[in-house]
Amino acid sequence: MNSTAPPAPPWHITEWLNSASPLSLEGLRGKVIMLEVFQMLCPGCVSHGLPQAQRVAEQFDPAEVAVLGLHSVFEHHAVMTPAALRAFVHEQRLRFPIGIDEPDGREEMPLTMKAYQMQGTPTLILIDKQGRLRLQRFGAVSDLYLGAGIAQLVCESGLPIDRSAPLSEVADAGCNETGCAPPVR
Amino acid sequence: MNSTAPPAPPWHITEWLNSASPLSLEGLRGKVIMLEVFQMLCPGCVSHGLPQAQRVAEQFDPAEVAVLGLHSVFEHHAVMTPAALRAFVHEQRLRFPIGIDEPDGREEMPLTMKAYQMQGTPTLILIDKQGRLRLQRFGAVSDLYLGAGIAQLVCESGLPIDRSAPLSEVADAGCNETGCAPPVR
Amino acid sequence: MNSTAPPAPPWHITEWLNSASPLSLEGLRGKVIMLEVFQMLCPGCVSHGLPQAQRVAEQFDPAEVAVLGLHSVFEHHAVMTPAALRAFVHEQRLRFPIGIDEPDGREEMPLTMKAYQMQGTPTLILIDKQGRLRLQRFGAVSDLYLGAGIAQLVCESGLPIDRSAPLSEVADAGCNETGCAPPVR
Amino acid sequence: MNSTAPPAPPWHITEWLNSASPLSLEGLRGKVIMLEVFQMLCPGCVSHGLPQAQRVAEQFDPAEVAVLGLHSVFEHHAVMTPAALRAFVHEQRLRFPIGIDEPDGREEMPLTMKAYQMQGTPTLILIDKQGRLRLQRFGAVSDLYLGAGIAQLVCESGLPIDRSAPLSEVADAGCNETGCAPPVR
Repeated sequence: MNSTAPPAPPWHITEWLNSASPLSLEGLRGKVIMLEVFQMLCPGCVSHGLPQAQRVAEQFDPAEVAVLGLHSVFEHHAVMTPAALRAFVHEQRLRFPIGIDEPDGREEMPLTMKAYQMQGTPTLILIDKQGRLRLQRFGAVSDLYLGAGIAQLVCESGLPIDRSAPLSEVADAGCNETGCAPPVR
Repeated sequence: MNSTAPPAPPWHITEWLNSASPLSLEGLRGKVIMLEVFQMLCPGCVSHGLPQAQRVAEQFDPAEVAVLGLHSVFEHHAVMTPAALRAFVHEQRLRFPIGIDEPDGREEMPLTMKAYQMQGTPTLILIDKQGRLRLQRFGAVSDLYLGAGIAQLVCESGLPIDRSAPLSEVADAGCNETGCAPPVR
Repeated sequence: MNSTAPPAPPWHITEWLNSASPLSLEGLRGKVIMLEVFQMLCPGCVSHGLPQAQRVAEQFDPAEVAVLGLHSVFEHHAVMTPAALRAFVHEQRLRFPIGIDEPDGREEMPLTMKAYQMQGTPTLILIDKQGRLRLQRFGAVSDLYLGAGIAQLVCESGLPIDRSAPLSEVADAGCNETGCAPPVR
Repeated sequence: MNSTAPPAPPWHITEWLNSASPLSLEGLRGKVIMLEVFQMLCPGCVSHGLPQAQRVAEQFDPAEVAVLGLHSVFEHHAVMTPAALRAFVHEQRLRFPIGIDEPDGREEMPLTMKAYQMQGTPTLILIDKQGRLRLQRFGAVSDLYLGAGIAQLVCESGLPIDRSAPLSEVADAGCNETGCAPPVR
C-alpha cells in the first residue's frame, strides 16, 4: 500500500450494463476494483483483456474484488453505440457490470478516459480499498502478474503504511500492436 | 474430385469490401475458393475462423486459391451494419475480399446463407476449380485438415473422376459453443 | 494465514542442481516457498508445471519468494537418473534450484513425496514464511490462481491470525490426464 | 512432383519402437512418408514437433501417409538411451513407429542424420511416393503448411512430371530457439 498513491478520479458513466443500479467509487469503497477499459472493436481487448477480466470475476470473491468493464470509445463512434455494445456483451457472454464512458461531444476521448489520461485500449486499472489508483497499464498484462497484484491489494489492511508499493506505477509504454491508442490532439 | 458434387449455389452480395470490383463464382472458375462465413459479433468467428482465413490467404498462392469472407447476418441486424463491418475489418486488419450477404428483408437468414442451408457462423466452405461445393463445415476446423483439403483441391486436374472424395461431406453437426446457429423458423 | 496449517514436513534431498549449497525449510524461513514437484518424463510437468515455475521465478522478488523444483521419481527409475536430469535441466534452461528426492530403496515413491502424501506429478506446493504447508495441488493450477496465492502469502505478516485461509486446502482430486499418479501399494 | 528431386538416402536404424518389423524406404514405396526427426530432450521436439506428428498420424489415412519418428541423438548420448526413449514414448503416448538412428561410434551425429545433412532437431522430412526427398525443414513448421504439403504429395500421380514443386526446397535456416543444432565439427 502506498499512502502517496493518488485518489482514483471519479467516473463519468452514461449507462450501466449488467448492473441493476449505477456503480461508483464511493459505493465500492472497501473492495479492490479491477477496471477493464475497452472498445468492442479493439482486437486486443476481445482476444485478451475481456477474457482475462471474466476469469478474474470468476476466481475472486465478489465481496472482496469488483470486476468492472468500461467502454471508452475514441474511434468509430457511429458504430460502437450502446445498442451495438449490448449485442456484443450478449454474444461474448460477459457477466460483469460494464459502464459506458461519457462521450465528450466532439467524438474524441470520452470523459473518464481523459480524466485518467489513458493511452488507449485495452487499459487495466486497479484501485485499492481506499479508492486510490494503484495500477494503470496499457496493453496486455499476464495472469500471473494480475493475480498477484489483486491479491496484494486484497491483503492490505485499510490503513496506509509508508512502504512504496511495486504496483503503484503508471505505465508509460507507447502503443503496441495489441492495443489501440488514440491520436494525439 | 467428385463428379457428383453439387454446383455451389450463386452468391447474393450487396457490397464487397477489400475488392475493387464484384466477385462471382463464374469469375473465379479455375481457382479453389475458400469462403469464410461469419458475423462480426460471433465470438468463434473472431477468435478462430477469421484469423485462420487470414493465415490461408497469406500462405497459398492467390493465383490458385481465392480466400473470401462472407458477412451473413442473421441476428442483431440493427448493429451489424455495413458501416460497423467496415470498422471491424479495418481494426482486425483483414485484407481478403469480404462480401455482405443480402438480407432477406425480414431480419431472418440472408439469401446466400439460406441458399447453402448453413447452420450458423462460422461456416467454412470449399469450392473446387469447377465451381462445385466440396466442403461445408459449421464450427471450428483444424489447420491441418484445412491445409490438406485446400491442397487436394488445388492438386486435382480439371477433369472429373469417379472416385468419391473424402472432403465432399456436408457437416450435420449441431451448434456448439464456439458457433452461432440461427433459430429454426 | 492459518494458525492451524500444519508444518511442512522436512525434505529428503540427495543432491541439488542450480544451487551452490543445499537448501532447507529452516534456511528459507521468512520467504514464501513454491515447490514444483515433477518428473522429467511427465508430460504435464514439461508442458505446464515447469514453464509456470520458471515464470514465477522470473516475476517475483527472490528475496520474498523461493521457487524450487523437486524431482520425485516414482517410475522409470532406471532412466530418470541424476545424469539424465542434469541434461534435461540444461536443455530446458531451467534456472531455479532443483532437488532430487531421495529414493526409498525399493523403486517406489521417494521419501519427500511419501512424507507429503502426494498423489503424483506435477504437484504444486506453497509453504508460508513460517514454514507451514498452505497449498498442495496435484495437476494443473492456473496462473491467476497461483499468482494470487503467492501474493497472499507474501503479504501476510509473520504473526499467526485466526482466520481460516482459502489457500490452505489440500487437493483431493484424483489423477487426471495431464498428471501422473503412482500406483496404490 | 519434381522429377529432379533427389532420392531420399537410406536409413540406418538400430531398433524400431511401435513396429512389429523393421521399416524401410523400399517397403513404404507408394506412400507419402512424414519423418519427424527428434531427440527426447529437445524442448521444441516435445512441445511442437512430436504432437504435430501425432496429429498427422491421426488425421491422414495410414494407407496413404506413413508417419514415422526418428530418434537422432547428437548430444547427451549417455542418457538418451534406447531404454530412456522407450519410457519417454510410453509416457508421451506416441503411437507411430519410431526408429533409433544408428550412432556413429564417436558420439557425434548419428548416421541417418549425417546422410541427410540435417542441421539439428526437430527436423521435418517429407518423402514422396517414389521415394524422393521433397521437403526437409529444421525447426517449426505450421500445421497449415504441413497439411498442404502432405496432401499435395498424396494427390500426385506416380508418374514424374516436369513442373518444379514448391515443396522441394531444403531449408537453410540456422538454429533457432526452438531447435537444437549440433556443433560444427
